[in-house]
Amino acid sequence: MSLIVLLTDYGYKDPYVGVIKGVIKSINPRAEIIDLTHGVGRHNVREGALILKSSAKYFPKGTVFLAIVDPGVGSSRRAILIKTRNYILVGPDNGLLSLLALEDGIQEVYDIGGSKYRLEKVSGTFHGRDVFAPVAAYASLGVPLGELGVRVEPGSIQVIDIPRPVVEGGAVKARVIYIDVYGNLLTNIPMTLVSELGWRIGDTLVVEAGSTSKECRLTTSFSLVEEGGLACYESSFEYLELGVNKGDASRELNLSLDDEVILKPARLGR
Amino acid sequence: MSLIVLLTDYGYKDPYVGVIKGVIKSINPRAEIIDLTHGVGRHNVREGALILKSSAKYFPKGTVFLAIVDPGVGSSRRAILIKTRNYILVGPDNGLLSLLALEDGIQEVYDIGGSKYRLEKVSGTFHGRDVFAPVAAYASLGVPLGELGVRVEPGSIQVIDIPRPVVEGGAVKARVIYIDVYGNLLTNIPMTLVSELGWRIGDTLVVEAGSTSKECRLTTSFSLVEEGGLACYESSFEYLELGVNKGDASRELNLSLDDEVILKPARLGR
Amino acid sequence: MSLIVLLTDYGYKDPYVGVIKGVIKSINPRAEIIDLTHGVGRHNVREGALILKSSAKYFPKGTVFLAIVDPGVGSSRRAILIKTRNYILVGPDNGLLSLLALEDGIQEVYDIGGSKYRLEKVSGTFHGRDVFAPVAAYASLGVPLGELGVRVEPGSIQVIDIPRPVVEGGAVKARVIYIDVYGNLLTNIPMTLVSELGWRIGDTLVVEAGSTSKECRLTTSFSLVEEGGLACYESSFEYLELGVNKGDASRELNLSLDDEVILKPARLGR
Repeated sequence: MSLIVLLTDYGYKDPYVGVIKGVIKSINPRAEIIDLTHGVGRHNVREGALILKSSAKYFPKGTVFLAIVDPGVGSSRRAILIKTRNYILVGPDNGLLSLLALEDGIQEVYDIGGSKYRLEKVSGTFHGRDVFAPVAAYASLGVPLGELGVRVEPGSIQVIDIPRPVVEGGAVKARVIYIDVYGNLLTNIPMTLVSELGWRIGDTLVVEAGSTSKECRLTTSFSLVEEGGLACYESSFEYLELGVNKGDASRELNLSLDDEVILKPARLGR
Repeated sequence: MSLIVLLTDYGYKDPYVGVIKGVIKSINPRAEIIDLTHGVGRHNVREGALILKSSAKYFPKGTVFLAIVDPGVGSSRRAILIKTRNYILVGPDNGLLSLLALEDGIQEVYDIGGSKYRLEKVSGTFHGRDVFAPVAAYASLGVPLGELGVRVEPGSIQVIDIPRPVVEGGAVKARVIYIDVYGNLLTNIPMTLVSELGWRIGDTLVVEAGSTSKECRLTTSFSLVEEGGLACYESSFEYLELGVNKGDASRELNLSLDDEVILKPARLGR
Repeated sequence: MSLIVLLTDYGYKDPYVGVIKGVIKSINPRAEIIDLTHGVGRHNVREGALILKSSAKYFPKGTVFLAIVDPGVGSSRRAILIKTRNYILVGPDNGLLSLLALEDGIQEVYDIGGSKYRLEKVSGTFHGRDVFAPVAAYASLGVPLGELGVRVEPGSIQVIDIPRPVVEGGAVKARVIYIDVYGNLLTNIPMTLVSELGWRIGDTLVVEAGSTSKECRLTTSFSLVEEGGLACYESSFEYLELGVNKGDASRELNLSLDDEVILKPARLGR
């Protein structure tokens, strides 16, 4: 099996994703292509990086991830291929691949901007089609990586960070780092921090968002609080998430991407 | 071929569907995955059930349907696998699978909530990934169903109903049970009732929606009435549908999902 | 490999695309199906035709294109299959297939409206499922085209046109023929005309849209102008496109599909 997984901010209206699949199938007719998502927020490199990092472990070893959130296409940003312990990542060198690469362990990095496997004519606006897709397709065919590009220092790639939450006197100043279609709010609080703070399933927390303050139960699923109630629980991204049972936490708390939100145990008072 | 067909209310923004495909391909690399739709209205179990029932017959015998519209995830609702005459259905036991199961004929039902084929770590919020996808993938590999879960009584599954229309003096009080992207309105009037009432192609009907009343031609396609005209015809769901030629019947009649609509022959008067 | 590529205006909410895939896989279990896009503007035959023409060359020789933007379904419009030099095209005879067919070179045309390979029951509203999908699936199996339909004159197919821009004294009166999800504006100015006019990379143009007038740099990528700046460049559709670096040209210039836009060299004055 040669599995190629796509993540882009191309959306679903335009033929861009379809054309990329055509390029891949023209090069490797046996490639199987899976859409991780094309709904990454426009130009939101950090969101794409977070999704890649959280999702990759569910795909088989050897999967090629072709990821494109590329506001700098046609400028001097590099195009890279990263071989990690389990995967091959192809995309722009703007941090998009970095969270997954660092988590899985970087083995080799190649600059593929001038790859001889690019399409004959390379546009200034659609490197997904002209550079990334053909290189990913040839990688899935098993072409030696050294032929696909020029080897560069792993330390030279652009890295982005998920901001860390700040702990002050038992309260956690966090940020909203993802909002899903249900309005569930992903915070940047890793579950390990939840343990360290001694918060336990069943505890009541207070959530402060702007001038709003609400109680929230620490639980294992939003469906375990009363309808319309606010819950916090381990998300599928391995961070703490805020959700409303059969409701929309984003609307309820009036929180948008990157907004600050403070969580603390109710016993500390409001 | 092992074909797995997905239906969810996950939408297209988030990576949830992509991750499910990763889980499936990790277990059964030969599985072929088709998206029926991920646009089911959020938590709208009945809409999902209706789509499944209407669509399944177009898929090959042996297809595994993995369906997830699951507001009760993480609560005590069961997770089930149903073997029907032609298919295998996997999903929550909340009625989602029931319309298709009853139509195709239930042979065996299994409770898979504690299946040994679940992922090692089962979250409280994403059973699509942790329970349903692995069980569906192993089913597509031909693992005996008795190994996937605990056999239970077919009569124990949750069943939902499409509400039946009420006939009074030649008029039919119906409901809107689905609205498609074109604004076509699916009613709960089965085509068999249309025959029983003696309504024939070419007849003029009167459609009453709230305080609005419009004439409507019974035809075989919306394209056979004048542009902007209202037509009723057999939908692809096997119920009577209302549509406007090159227009939007939902907007025209100001009708939303579950609203009441009355149809009667024009010869009965308004 | 038998590759079938889908383009429709069905959108992503309804099960229509999924059902078509079920029909195809029931007939040809080895068919591989790729979505080019289902986001064509509702009933916008010209947009669909433009996307087909611009995208097909990225798919392997022998690909079957199944394209459905079909406001006249159920009326007397023909259903056709066109064999071109490299591809097989299946869809309604309303111009949708014509731009690609003419560009690739028409070899044979068949009327498939009465094909014996249609589904047994043909609805009046969903020929995608009942006529086009089965014929495309059997074509992908290698059934002789003469068995799929009745051969007709190539000259009898409906043809649509991309309107041509008008050149007057060095200025070009153009139209917006496509707007992508980023708000980039595709004009009907072919790159060949740009060369003929002697416009060169680095030139400054003036763009007039309604009462708005803006300067615009002719470049190879929107990312090469300053953030928020207007650029024009060769699009991935081989026409001149207007885009704003990290912005939305459609909103910036207040331009919608089919609107007029005038471009001229800045040296001509405003």
